[in-house]
Amino acid sequence: MKARVHVMLKDGVLDPQGQAVAHALGALGFEGVDDVRQGKVIDLDLAETDIAAAEAKVREMCEKLLANTVIERYDIEIG
Amino acid sequence: MKARVHVMLKDGVLDPQGQAVAHALGALGFEGVDDVRQGKVIDLDLAETDIAAAEAKVREMCEKLLANTVIERYDIEIG
Repeated sequence: MKARVHVMLKDGVLDPQGQAVAHALGALGFEGVDDVRQGKVIDLDLAETDIAAAEAKVREMCEKLLANTVIERYDIEIG
Repeated sequence: MKARVHVMLKDGVLDPQGQAVAHALGALGFEGVDDVRQGKVIDLDLAETDIAAAEAKVREMCEKLLANTVIERYDIEIG
């Protein structure tokens, strides 16, 4: 079963990577870019076949390893 | 208008970040993780209001800056 996790900095946390991308887009002549936020996407291929069990497992992975929940939020898509 | 871009290493390109995550999950006792791929997600807030125009602009951003198309593929979600 496939799972996709997005890990983004929480709103209000400074995102220097996103700012760097926004600045570079401006330098390349792209106008009308109001905001850029950059995060991580993690695609997992799991042996688990039950959707609820897979989601619970991925949530535990996020809490323990994939996200720093002090400054990051995550969301999980299964299947 | 919001746009979300995923940038992932192409299949077949070695993904050391993904391998590191897979290894760390194993070390934490998570079993049944067959594969992990890690990529970037970039959320853009655009002044553009036309969907087709926004997608064309984001595609150009990907080709010029956001993705290294030699080794990375990207996909774009608008709205």
